[in-house]
Amino acid sequence: MSRTIACIGAGVIGGGWAAYFLARGFDVVAWDPAPDAEARLRRTVDAAWPAVTELGLDEGADRSRLRVATSLADACAAAEFVQESAPEDLDLKRRLLAELVEATGDDVVIASSTSGFPMSDMATETRDPSRLVVGHPFNPPYVIPLVEVVGGRATAPDAVASAADFYRAIGKSVIQMDREVPGFVANRLQEALWREALHMVANGEATVEQIDASITEGPGLRWPVHGPCLTFHLAGGEGGMAHMLDHFGPSLRAPWTRLEAPALTDELREAMVLGTSDEAGARSFTDLVAERDRAVIAVRRAVEAARTR
Amino acid sequence: MSRTIACIGAGVIGGGWAAYFLARGFDVVAWDPAPDAEARLRRTVDAAWPAVTELGLDEGADRSRLRVATSLADACAAAEFVQESAPEDLDLKRRLLAELVEATGDDVVIASSTSGFPMSDMATETRDPSRLVVGHPFNPPYVIPLVEVVGGRATAPDAVASAADFYRAIGKSVIQMDREVPGFVANRLQEALWREALHMVANGEATVEQIDASITEGPGLRWPVHGPCLTFHLAGGEGGMAHMLDHFGPSLRAPWTRLEAPALTDELREAMVLGTSDEAGARSFTDLVAERDRAVIAVRRAVEAARTR
Repeated sequence: MSRTIACIGAGVIGGGWAAYFLARGFDVVAWDPAPDAEARLRRTVDAAWPAVTELGLDEGADRSRLRVATSLADACAAAEFVQESAPEDLDLKRRLLAELVEATGDDVVIASSTSGFPMSDMATETRDPSRLVVGHPFNPPYVIPLVEVVGGRATAPDAVASAADFYRAIGKSVIQMDREVPGFVANRLQEALWREALHMVANGEATVEQIDASITEGPGLRWPVHGPCLTFHLAGGEGGMAHMLDHFGPSLRAPWTRLEAPALTDELREAMVLGTSDEAGARSFTDLVAERDRAVIAVRRAVEAARTR
Repeated sequence: MSRTIACIGAGVIGGGWAAYFLARGFDVVAWDPAPDAEARLRRTVDAAWPAVTELGLDEGADRSRLRVATSLADACAAAEFVQESAPEDLDLKRRLLAELVEATGDDVVIASSTSGFPMSDMATETRDPSRLVVGHPFNPPYVIPLVEVVGGRATAPDAVASAADFYRAIGKSVIQMDREVPGFVANRLQEALWREALHMVANGEATVEQIDASITEGPGLRWPVHGPCLTFHLAGGEGGMAHMLDHFGPSLRAPWTRLEAPALTDELREAMVLGTSDEAGARSFTDLVAERDRAVIAVRRAVEAARTR
């Protein structure tokens, strides 16, 4: 496993990754061209440290193993893995990834934290795109496990597999995608919700506080437990996903959101029903209900105890 | 406070409401025309009972206080509040609400659990729509606190206020909306996410399991803690919502989802920034980060402990 990681870009995401890698016992060399980058990075890591400590530090984990490099070349010199978390600017990412390829050894995988650009769109200015992958985390990377991993058209399959293995080995939950979709999976889902939220505020239909409360007091309590598919499987009662789609399918056509609904074809219905059944596995409807209820109660108590106000 | 509640419709939602009202110490009279309704209802209440017991039963709470009526009139005879949870069929709801108005006293508020129909569209066949309100819960109503309350054009403001007060008095988290929007607030948000999920499955971009994992391991862990607005406030780093919108605003225009994004006007930007700031209140950026991290860790542990597998 890599022992030195370069964190390129030291904002909220880059700093969060640095904290996570330090907690896993790596040496971290960071680089960011902003004049106040080092101070901000150290504040981010310090703010994260109680959380990563609470989650458990690996052997050798120490904030003193964070070094801020004076140049990109300096940051990459000893790096066995690079996590790029620069601002979300396509031209900047293109130039930066090309520079990172030049500054690293031929066996170093370079993962981009981009929240939306497909690697095929970013890997256009380098002579060797084979080592470039997307490794998209969720804020804050030191407590949210998800990382979405996907390569571009010119990425070597080994590089994708190696990045996914690396993230799994350090405790992340990896979704490895076979194909590029702008925004990947979770961001597309949360972005659809976010766009609708912005529409509602723009139209005076709901306030910011109502929107947030509608999630934290409502469906947000279910989503750490069961994702949207298993959630709706249970909304279908004992008839499960099939009943849910047959019963609520027509309301898909209602003008609820500004997002046009897909046609609920037999194929889509089948894919949803079988997929949900696979996911439920050996858990019966009753098992899933009991699991959800136990977990939502525990989540409510956990959040209540942790809230500042 | 009402002491006898009529639950009209005894499916997943009606049964869940029955369990909640029983746990709060009410007499509940249920009615549902389905031949197996009573057995199904009692199974639903029995399945819910461990959860409502864990959350705490009010004085007198007893499952024996559930009676299944033989007719709608019988169910309504003693009711001081009616919760209608019939199937999501507009014609059926119209007829049923008209019958409920006839079967109840002039001071009885009738709340519909509809997940999407505006009351103005449902209250078209009754001579007195003034007592008809929407009281939309989330599944399961006995553990998820949210209830969205809104009247139709012909609903008396007092009836809306009375329903909201009643729900608050029995421990629900109420969002009281000033105007009708199809799907209300939380359902529009979760529906936008759901439509995008269906699109992704329909296009072979992600599997059901990937979609669920992308939420339970990712943004779903934040949503019980901070809603989408406060979440993105923190994604903006120390610059908060303003920085987030300025930095990620352009990606709103990217073709991430099938939902067309709203124009990020100055007015919308201002509404988001001020609304988020109001919601954050006295909590500083650092407070919010610490709160989120503590809570997400607690949520992860709570879910892990409660999971069946």
